[in-house]
Amino acid sequence: MNLTEFAKKLNLSLSTVSKALSDSHEISIATKIKVLAKAKEFNYQANPMASSLRKHRTNTIAVIIPEVVNGFFGQVINGIESVIQENGYHLLIYLTHDDMQNEVAVTRLLQNGRVDGILISLSQHTSDISHLQVLKDKGIPLVFFDRIAEHMDVPKVITDDYNSGIKATQHLINNGCKRIAFLSISKKLSISNKRLNGYLAALKLNNLKKDNSLIIFCDAEHSKNIEMIRELLKRKNRPDCVFASVENLAIATYAICDELHLKIPNDIKVITFSNSDTSNWLNPPLTAITQPAYEMGRRAGNIVLEMIGKTNYVYSQEIIILNSTLVERVSTKNNC
Amino acid sequence: MNLTEFAKKLNLSLSTVSKALSDSHEISIATKIKVLAKAKEFNYQANPMASSLRKHRTNTIAVIIPEVVNGFFGQVINGIESVIQENGYHLLIYLTHDDMQNEVAVTRLLQNGRVDGILISLSQHTSDISHLQVLKDKGIPLVFFDRIAEHMDVPKVITDDYNSGIKATQHLINNGCKRIAFLSISKKLSISNKRLNGYLAALKLNNLKKDNSLIIFCDAEHSKNIEMIRELLKRKNRPDCVFASVENLAIATYAICDELHLKIPNDIKVITFSNSDTSNWLNPPLTAITQPAYEMGRRAGNIVLEMIGKTNYVYSQEIIILNSTLVERVSTKNNC
Repeated sequence: MNLTEFAKKLNLSLSTVSKALSDSHEISIATKIKVLAKAKEFNYQANPMASSLRKHRTNTIAVIIPEVVNGFFGQVINGIESVIQENGYHLLIYLTHDDMQNEVAVTRLLQNGRVDGILISLSQHTSDISHLQVLKDKGIPLVFFDRIAEHMDVPKVITDDYNSGIKATQHLINNGCKRIAFLSISKKLSISNKRLNGYLAALKLNNLKKDNSLIIFCDAEHSKNIEMIRELLKRKNRPDCVFASVENLAIATYAICDELHLKIPNDIKVITFSNSDTSNWLNPPLTAITQPAYEMGRRAGNIVLEMIGKTNYVYSQEIIILNSTLVERVSTKNNC
Repeated sequence: MNLTEFAKKLNLSLSTVSKALSDSHEISIATKIKVLAKAKEFNYQANPMASSLRKHRTNTIAVIIPEVVNGFFGQVINGIESVIQENGYHLLIYLTHDDMQNEVAVTRLLQNGRVDGILISLSQHTSDISHLQVLKDKGIPLVFFDRIAEHMDVPKVITDDYNSGIKATQHLINNGCKRIAFLSISKKLSISNKRLNGYLAALKLNNLKKDNSLIIFCDAEHSKNIEMIRELLKRKNRPDCVFASVENLAIATYAICDELHLKIPNDIKVITFSNSDTSNWLNPPLTAITQPAYEMGRRAGNIVLEMIGKTNYVYSQEIIILNSTLVERVSTKNNC
C-alpha cells in the first residue's frame, strides 16, 4: 500500500496524512491519533524513498575508504556504524582501492542527494581535491578522518601522527638503532608525511644524520614495493631497523627478512603502525603504534550527524587529534 | 535544480522530460537530443531518490554480515563491491555483531523499498529465520552466502565445508594426531556443523573414537570462550591438536599455549579456517583452510543482480559450492 492508497482508505487528503505521519503542528492531535491507529491497522509503513524525498532526507551516510581488508579501517567502520545506527541512519560503503579516479567517480555519484553526509579517508594517490570541494560547495556535510586533505576547511579526525613518528623513532634509537629506514606509503598523504617528519625530528634530536637513501616511498604496486624493500635489505650497508608506516609493509619486511635469512630483531629491528590483533603472535611479536580506530570512527560519525542536524552548518577548521599507543614487543628488542 | 524547474526551463511537460531522460520509446529522438543537450548546459542531474521512486528502483544492494574486522568478510565485501560497482549499484553495509536481535532489526529496516536486493551471512546465534521469510515474501531478492539457512528456498553461495572438515582432520591424523579437539563457533550455524561433521567422518574413516569432551562450542563471549579453551589445554589428558573452525579461536589457542608453555607443533598442533595474509608470519606459521572469499562475493553479487533484473524471479534451491584450499605450514608439522 502506498501513501495515496492509504490516504484514500482514510478519506483524507494526501497532504493531511503525510503531515500527520510526520507529526506536523498543522494537524490536530485527533487526526494524528486516527491516522496512526489506521496505519497500525493496515500495517502501513512509509516507503523510505518517498518519505526521504518529502523530507529532503535520506537517513544515509556514505563512508569512502581505500580498502576494507584492513584492521584499521575495519575498526573505524565499527565505530562509525555504532554511532549512526544509534541515530537511525544507514551506512553506504565505497572502496577506492587507493585509486584517485575511483574516488572521483564515487564523489560524482554522491553529488545529488543520495546521502545526507559523507565521511572520507583519502586514497594514497589523491593529489587534487576539487572533487571534494564540489561536495562541500553543494552543502553536503563532509568529514575527513585519518587520511585528510590538510588545507580544506572541513572537520577532521586524526591521530597524533607526528608525535607517534617521534615516539617510534626514539624507541628504536633507545634500543641501539642508528641506521633507521623509513617506509612511506605516499609522497602526497599528510599522515605519511607527518609520520616521516616525526622520524626526521627524532633523528635530529639525537644528532643522527638524515640519509635519503633510507627513506623509501612504497607508493607503487605491491610487487614493486616488495622489490624496493628487498633492494634496501640486500645493501652492503643495510639499515639496522625498518620503520614501516603501515602494517602490510611490515609484513612484507618479515617475508623478505625470512628470504634473506635476516633474523628479527638481532640482524634488523622492525616497528610499524598497526591495528591488527595478531601482531602479538607473529614471529617475532611485532612492536606497533596502535591508533584508536574505533574511537576515531565514533568521533567522525558524531560530527557528521551534528552537521546534518544544523541548517547552514558553518564549516570550520575543526580538528580532533586522538592519541596513539606504542606497544613494545620482541621485534625491536635489544640484545635478544 | 529539480526536475520540475528543469522542465519549465525547457518549456516541456514534466512527463516528457522525465521520459526523455530515461530514453523512453514514447519520445522522439529529436526531443531526446534537445533534452540531453539542455541537461548538459544546465548541469542538470536527476535526484536519485526521485528517479528511484519513479522507476521503483533504488540501485542499492544491502549486505548483512556479522562483523567487518575479519579477513574473510572483508574479502567477500571486495568481491561483492567489484560486481555491483561494475553494474552501477551502491552498497549498504549492516553489521549484526553476531546478535540475532540486531539481524532482525536490520531486516525490518529493509522491508519497505530501501534496497533492490539483499545478501546475508547469518549471525552466530540465528535460530529462527522468520524475519528473512518476511523479506522473501515481499519479493525482495535475497541471497545467502557462507552462513546460510539451509532449509530456506533462496540461492546460496557456500564453500565445501564438510569436505574441508574431512581434509583438515585427515591432515592432522596423517601427521600423527590421535586426540583431536574441535572448536566450533555455534551449535546452530550450518557451516560450523558441516565442518564438525567432516571432522567426525574423518575420525570414523580412521577408526578413531569420537570423544565428546574434545568438542567445544565456543559460542559465548570471547572471555568465556578463552576460559573453555584454557580448561581444555590444562587437562591431564589434553588433546594433541586443536582444529579451530574460525581464525580468532586459533589465535586464542596460540595465546593460551604461550601462557601454558605448550610448544606448537611439538606439544600440540593447530589448524584453522582462515583468510588472513599473516598466517604465514605467525609463530609458528599457521596451517589453514582458506576459503575463496573474493570469488564467493562475486558469485553472490552476480546472483542478486540477476534476480533484480527478472520480474517474478522464481526462487529455487540454487546452491553454488566453491572449493577451499588447505595450506600446510609449521603449526601441524610432525617431528619438528
